[in-house]
Amino acid sequence: MKYVPINSLEIPRFAEVKTFMRLPNVKTVEDIDYAVIGIPFDTAATYRTGARFGPSAIREISSLIKPYNVPQDVDVTEWLSGVDYGDIPVVPGYIEDTYTRIEAGLDPIVAAGVIPICLGGDHSITLGELRAAAKVHGPLALVHFDSHFDTIDSYFGNKYNHGTVFKRALEEGLLDVEHSVQVGMRGTFYSPEDLKGSRELGFHVITAFEMRKLGLQEVTRQIIERVGKTKAFFTFDIDFVDPAFAPGTGTIEVGGFTSYETLDMIRELRDIDFVGYDLVEVLPSFDPTQITAFLGSNIVFEFISIIAYQKKMRQGSQIK
Amino acid sequence: MKYVPINSLEIPRFAEVKTFMRLPNVKTVEDIDYAVIGIPFDTAATYRTGARFGPSAIREISSLIKPYNVPQDVDVTEWLSGVDYGDIPVVPGYIEDTYTRIEAGLDPIVAAGVIPICLGGDHSITLGELRAAAKVHGPLALVHFDSHFDTIDSYFGNKYNHGTVFKRALEEGLLDVEHSVQVGMRGTFYSPEDLKGSRELGFHVITAFEMRKLGLQEVTRQIIERVGKTKAFFTFDIDFVDPAFAPGTGTIEVGGFTSYETLDMIRELRDIDFVGYDLVEVLPSFDPTQITAFLGSNIVFEFISIIAYQKKMRQGSQIK
Amino acid sequence: MKYVPINSLEIPRFAEVKTFMRLPNVKTVEDIDYAVIGIPFDTAATYRTGARFGPSAIREISSLIKPYNVPQDVDVTEWLSGVDYGDIPVVPGYIEDTYTRIEAGLDPIVAAGVIPICLGGDHSITLGELRAAAKVHGPLALVHFDSHFDTIDSYFGNKYNHGTVFKRALEEGLLDVEHSVQVGMRGTFYSPEDLKGSRELGFHVITAFEMRKLGLQEVTRQIIERVGKTKAFFTFDIDFVDPAFAPGTGTIEVGGFTSYETLDMIRELRDIDFVGYDLVEVLPSFDPTQITAFLGSNIVFEFISIIAYQKKMRQGSQIK
Amino acid sequence: MKYVPINSLEIPRFAEVKTFMRLPNVKTVEDIDYAVIGIPFDTAATYRTGARFGPSAIREISSLIKPYNVPQDVDVTEWLSGVDYGDIPVVPGYIEDTYTRIEAGLDPIVAAGVIPICLGGDHSITLGELRAAAKVHGPLALVHFDSHFDTIDSYFGNKYNHGTVFKRALEEGLLDVEHSVQVGMRGTFYSPEDLKGSRELGFHVITAFEMRKLGLQEVTRQIIERVGKTKAFFTFDIDFVDPAFAPGTGTIEVGGFTSYETLDMIRELRDIDFVGYDLVEVLPSFDPTQITAFLGSNIVFEFISIIAYQKKMRQGSQIK
Amino acid sequence: MKYVPINSLEIPRFAEVKTFMRLPNVKTVEDIDYAVIGIPFDTAATYRTGARFGPSAIREISSLIKPYNVPQDVDVTEWLSGVDYGDIPVVPGYIEDTYTRIEAGLDPIVAAGVIPICLGGDHSITLGELRAAAKVHGPLALVHFDSHFDTIDSYFGNKYNHGTVFKRALEEGLLDVEHSVQVGMRGTFYSPEDLKGSRELGFHVITAFEMRKLGLQEVTRQIIERVGKTKAFFTFDIDFVDPAFAPGTGTIEVGGFTSYETLDMIRELRDIDFVGYDLVEVLPSFDPTQITAFLGSNIVFEFISIIAYQKKMRQGSQIK
Amino acid sequence: MKYVPINSLEIPRFAEVKTFMRLPNVKTVEDIDYAVIGIPFDTAATYRTGARFGPSAIREISSLIKPYNVPQDVDVTEWLSGVDYGDIPVVPGYIEDTYTRIEAGLDPIVAAGVIPICLGGDHSITLGELRAAAKVHGPLALVHFDSHFDTIDSYFGNKYNHGTVFKRALEEGLLDVEHSVQVGMRGTFYSPEDLKGSRELGFHVITAFEMRKLGLQEVTRQIIERVGKTKAFFTFDIDFVDPAFAPGTGTIEVGGFTSYETLDMIRELRDIDFVGYDLVEVLPSFDPTQITAFLGSNIVFEFISIIAYQKKMRQGSQIK
Repeated sequence: MKYVPINSLEIPRFAEVKTFMRLPNVKTVEDIDYAVIGIPFDTAATYRTGARFGPSAIREISSLIKPYNVPQDVDVTEWLSGVDYGDIPVVPGYIEDTYTRIEAGLDPIVAAGVIPICLGGDHSITLGELRAAAKVHGPLALVHFDSHFDTIDSYFGNKYNHGTVFKRALEEGLLDVEHSVQVGMRGTFYSPEDLKGSRELGFHVITAFEMRKLGLQEVTRQIIERVGKTKAFFTFDIDFVDPAFAPGTGTIEVGGFTSYETLDMIRELRDIDFVGYDLVEVLPSFDPTQITAFLGSNIVFEFISIIAYQKKMRQGSQIK
Repeated sequence: MKYVPINSLEIPRFAEVKTFMRLPNVKTVEDIDYAVIGIPFDTAATYRTGARFGPSAIREISSLIKPYNVPQDVDVTEWLSGVDYGDIPVVPGYIEDTYTRIEAGLDPIVAAGVIPICLGGDHSITLGELRAAAKVHGPLALVHFDSHFDTIDSYFGNKYNHGTVFKRALEEGLLDVEHSVQVGMRGTFYSPEDLKGSRELGFHVITAFEMRKLGLQEVTRQIIERVGKTKAFFTFDIDFVDPAFAPGTGTIEVGGFTSYETLDMIRELRDIDFVGYDLVEVLPSFDPTQITAFLGSNIVFEFISIIAYQKKMRQGSQIK
Repeated sequence: MKYVPINSLEIPRFAEVKTFMRLPNVKTVEDIDYAVIGIPFDTAATYRTGARFGPSAIREISSLIKPYNVPQDVDVTEWLSGVDYGDIPVVPGYIEDTYTRIEAGLDPIVAAGVIPICLGGDHSITLGELRAAAKVHGPLALVHFDSHFDTIDSYFGNKYNHGTVFKRALEEGLLDVEHSVQVGMRGTFYSPEDLKGSRELGFHVITAFEMRKLGLQEVTRQIIERVGKTKAFFTFDIDFVDPAFAPGTGTIEVGGFTSYETLDMIRELRDIDFVGYDLVEVLPSFDPTQITAFLGSNIVFEFISIIAYQKKMRQGSQIK
Repeated sequence: MKYVPINSLEIPRFAEVKTFMRLPNVKTVEDIDYAVIGIPFDTAATYRTGARFGPSAIREISSLIKPYNVPQDVDVTEWLSGVDYGDIPVVPGYIEDTYTRIEAGLDPIVAAGVIPICLGGDHSITLGELRAAAKVHGPLALVHFDSHFDTIDSYFGNKYNHGTVFKRALEEGLLDVEHSVQVGMRGTFYSPEDLKGSRELGFHVITAFEMRKLGLQEVTRQIIERVGKTKAFFTFDIDFVDPAFAPGTGTIEVGGFTSYETLDMIRELRDIDFVGYDLVEVLPSFDPTQITAFLGSNIVFEFISIIAYQKKMRQGSQIK
Repeated sequence: MKYVPINSLEIPRFAEVKTFMRLPNVKTVEDIDYAVIGIPFDTAATYRTGARFGPSAIREISSLIKPYNVPQDVDVTEWLSGVDYGDIPVVPGYIEDTYTRIEAGLDPIVAAGVIPICLGGDHSITLGELRAAAKVHGPLALVHFDSHFDTIDSYFGNKYNHGTVFKRALEEGLLDVEHSVQVGMRGTFYSPEDLKGSRELGFHVITAFEMRKLGLQEVTRQIIERVGKTKAFFTFDIDFVDPAFAPGTGTIEVGGFTSYETLDMIRELRDIDFVGYDLVEVLPSFDPTQITAFLGSNIVFEFISIIAYQKKMRQGSQIK
Repeated sequence: MKYVPINSLEIPRFAEVKTFMRLPNVKTVEDIDYAVIGIPFDTAATYRTGARFGPSAIREISSLIKPYNVPQDVDVTEWLSGVDYGDIPVVPGYIEDTYTRIEAGLDPIVAAGVIPICLGGDHSITLGELRAAAKVHGPLALVHFDSHFDTIDSYFGNKYNHGTVFKRALEEGLLDVEHSVQVGMRGTFYSPEDLKGSRELGFHVITAFEMRKLGLQEVTRQIIERVGKTKAFFTFDIDFVDPAFAPGTGTIEVGGFTSYETLDMIRELRDIDFVGYDLVEVLPSFDPTQITAFLGSNIVFEFISIIAYQKKMRQGSQIK
């Protein structure tokens, strides 16, 4: 059985219950290459909250996504079977219980060799995803697009929130920091230690200020070089993008990247061996025109396209 | 097999793909008492359009609905099995094709003895629903809550739109006008002929102005008396309610009813033999706080509660 | 020549340049009974500003108004010829220059015996209207619906703003205070002097608190009795209505009246000899669903209906 | 030293840093009768979140509040000195730490005999407030206006959230349930047990359905009788009010009360011996026209007015 | 007689009934060079609908446009006389009737040698415009800026909608495809056939992906070369622009062009012999800050500036 | 005593009364390097009004600003002490009274050698600021970022509004025009005289069209060269930025600059001897996602960073 989206030339895009890209909503790991999974948890946000409605908003507008990726020259329905797996039953207000549930929810998916693509929720969820992924794959190279480091040690005396997640991930041995990279950091910092801190943890960091000087092509080259052949995890915080293009998020930072630059960079990373992806921090209550949720949908579509592209490369067109 | 909503004490209301009241999304007519069906058609609107997104908006916020109806003293999950059937594949821009698809979509549901509860879409869809229902049940008593008559002969030289639907229904013999009633009409009229016209067609009409004088209890008494034991169809245009309570609709009329008055009136009609229901004209792009879609969800819940109440009355609690 | 609205069964309501109720936009005083005139001035607002866009927002949504008034049993196009006169060229930032222009703009209209219906703008504009009206008619009985008295002596050391307008009008001898009435005042006051002040100026004041106790029928009875046969001016601040029904205004006050109560009260005043009307303080930037502008449109339609009703009464139906 | 609001006839209401009712922002317990305190915690919300911005939104629009309460005939600045105390430094994401901080923050205020008026935040904060209050006053009579019971035992396996708060308060011995009352419950229920549960816990419960039948005067009479002379705590969830009047909240329920009915009921309770108050669940991201935050401001003003009224009664006007 | 906008140094921009750029609203073809015409039809939209309010929203904000175009060095009021012609009386819900009315409405304008500039409405309207234009001018070179091809054969079994319009235009012989060009296509495609299809129909297509590589100057050079001296029609779908700059449209596509790039490209085409223009798909209900409608207004102003520039070139400044 | 912001790792950013960057709200000139001062005046706006709420909106979202400026390598709290001084008590509706109060309010600040950073309000306020600054410093070089010249002689017969402010400043001898520069002007003009006018007044003007050709580095080079060592005043109208990045302003102009370009240009000017700054025309009612107010906050932070950078340069790190 192959799971593909509803045909929008036959059934209008605005019709039917809303799933990601109009994929079937089935909690299965059989016969699929990838699963899109909502993790509607936002308890760990330090400023605006409400990203628990992110998966729903992304599903709604993702019905505009069609299956063919032009620059990658790949039709995802030709190469892949995938589902909207629904959501992980998080526990609002309780991050440790939620981590337990994220792990429990993702374990069978990862175990089955299905690639999980998670929709946040705030950035804290990535820790749960990394735990599930590292159990199977070992420590992973992190490819982290964001305007913030998320490597602070603690806030208000507590260890878990959306700004500490990669500090925790390192402590838990989930990351292969030698092959990990953080890009896009900008805005104002608490102190020069923020940047130094991330670098001392071992990350290769390229701030937005440096990116503008290096040029984006050089940035993607460095990411590819840094990751090499290591198994990798792609975590994308929507606030990497400038708020003109993505206003609907919790902690906006001006001076960011356009949607074109963003999608173009992601496409360049198509040869990295990603075993998991997420797109976090879409906040619908600050997205009155749905442009943030739609950009998020396109980013997820680029993730799916990379999976399709890699399958196409592996199999060649004759075997499909 | 019994279909009931997800338990919200276990899985948060904001989680999972959004269906009406968190019911399973299954296109079945087996083992169910009722089906909630979206008909996302808005081509026939004469002013604001966009009600095609009504079913989706109602599904989103309907996750707040719980199963127990206090004034009716009935738990709908105790008495009923029901599904979110998904949407009818309407043809935007083409009303006659759409009517064909509505009929085709509803025929098997009505034939199976399942009660359809349709979510609009603009009010034109009711003609398709009545065609499907009358095929099985014969001409139906109409219980019509609205601020407009929708009995105009034509607009701009054309027969089908959301303001002519009950003129057409009469011409097609779908209504038992002797037992039909229209309530809530108000705002400004084209001329005194609007009211006279509806009355000459045979409807018992109680305008909002008359309702305020009669009192709402007398109005429901007259509705019950008028319909009697005839099989009936309940069509509810959300603009019956005042725009303070339901701003998200296409042709608002001030001086309307409160949400309390509205729900209370609906509950009073619980002994009428309804064989179909719809709730139309919810327009999400004018509903920034979701109060219209949520009121619509509650109205649909009252419909379901009437079905449950009648089943309870028929069977008694010992047989369940 | 008779000026009437575009027929909405032939040309859709959303089409054509937007004028009040789709009336012709002509700067004439010939052949007309009434003129709707925008006065887009908001310099005198003490809190939120932006009511300069009020006339435009009212025009936009007023295309939903049809010509027949049900409770008054009058078709305004049968009895009246009227135009959308366009706007007075106010001077933003300069209230005294603006008053000069309001007077200059209204003088020929009042002189021609045409009844002006002005759309604000903030409440300060009424002083200019009263100056123009009193020049021809002498001191006028004021019928003032509002949640505020607008009889403060000065703000921040200045005499003219939207909270001092009726103090000024009295000082200038424009009002026949013995026949004037203020109704609807509520919210919090600066001190008990606010109420006492208005009463000492000679107004008959009925606060919202008193209105709830008296009942609205008794309130309209008192208004009618107070005004008697004196020539009167009807000034309606949209914040008379509760913010649930009219959120789009500058200084909201909770605990107000519904749209039904409001329209019903206005209709009861149909025998008063009004020589001018205005509807002020509609603020579109706080009216995302257009319900305030639409209620304003309906209030203006009630004004027009009173003019039509009185003409019908005077002429009888045989002469039309 | 006496703390009173800025005079708005001298400095415009839109000017200066925004504090509640333009009170001085001072963290003092000296020389004051009451303190308005923000508790911007929303981690415990089960559906929409974001009430952490409630105190800020209330402060912004509360600058429209003037000092004289008409129906209570009391000028709060004449009788009272009060401050905007700022916020309790809550810990987002961590409810137990937050409770510790709420208690620590309120202890000195309660100890000093100052009446705390807290602004939520979600309803979970009331448990912290009750702990602080009960330490000094012993178990308190609860006067609880809400559309929900908030007496559920647990959600998703956890004890603390905004729906369990009064179950916890009872278990901790903070309430004198014999004199406690819950009013306004409505909407759909999980089951008939919801209501039975609250009653079995000992609360006097009057649902909204019952309130409509009893009449609101009888409801306030029953509240007053129930509480008697017991020291009481007034907790007001803004969702008591109908969403037409208060859309900006987390879990709206239709069929609620108007702003007029709400304020009128509160005023009737002016002789109850309240030792603490809160107003919770204002959610700015669903309040585009600020009407919810402004109604919240008025409710808090009614609380302050009760304090002033009681002081006036105790002291008589000669001693002030 | 010469028709020019109201002078905004004398009458404020926010005053008077709103017409495009404050031009006189006159249905004339005498003494004018161009006419701005609304075609408020949106029945043919396949996703979001509501573009029927586009002309009104553009008129409202276009009052900010001043007459002098800096980069083109031309004052449009110096060289041109033009009117806001009002709207074509479209038939909502009926596309074939609407086409008849569009043709009938435009015929006299085109016949009089007046250049029509139409405001949509959805993109389906262009077929009606092309029919009217081709009747006089013969097949036209199409200059098509859009993110979509709009050359699909049919949707849901029907021939006419906003995605099939140029397929139909070709079939009807309205286009000189050898000199026609489509630019800006991007987003996701149904399949590689979408692009191939448009090219096989004969269009010169430059996708957004190709545009980024070619550079925009090369793109305009290719457009100019392609069109040559052929009479041309300029159709501009606002979704050509990135949603950050133009969120208010029906089918947004990320990765688009900035407003600066857009206007700059249009200006470069000033020597093409355009005999008609349109600007379509502005959707006000997704344009809360009016930036889309204002960008649309600027695009129309660039169209008018091209007309003025060409007249200036033809006549030289001595003859004016 | 040193005034610094609240630490956001201890007290959440959403907590406490909102001041600029969480600075103490103290009306002092002692012990401080700079003061942030609101001037909430918007009477002089010619189109949209409401910028009186600008300071409040900027304060609200500025709590996201952290103290370390990465490209400038300076921690503002290390080098500077500063306060949120609150607002100047402007007189809405009365510009000349307001100028008197602005001067009176700023005089002690300027006299004390404290650098004022003013938050508008509309651009008219800058005249008051320049009067206060020139009294102490003599005529100042103006560095003016804007999309408009603001050098028109009069509107509607009056001298003072937000479009005439620099004409007035020159007439009053407040500017050293030989060292003054205006950059960013774009959009449509009244006539070529607009540009010529500003140049004839003596300004060095670089329009946005010229900026795109020169490149932004050359633009900043010319600004620096033009100003030289003259004491300067930096006035920044937020409409310099493109409306995609800053929709919340009164007179948007498309084709503007990105937030990255904007901040980068400001940073380049760090060696100019600025004695005063302002950021004007932020209009919250058109800023639903707060991105404009947040960009404004970042611009102000760049101003503060220049002050810190210059102090660091003067003192060296050893002396701090």
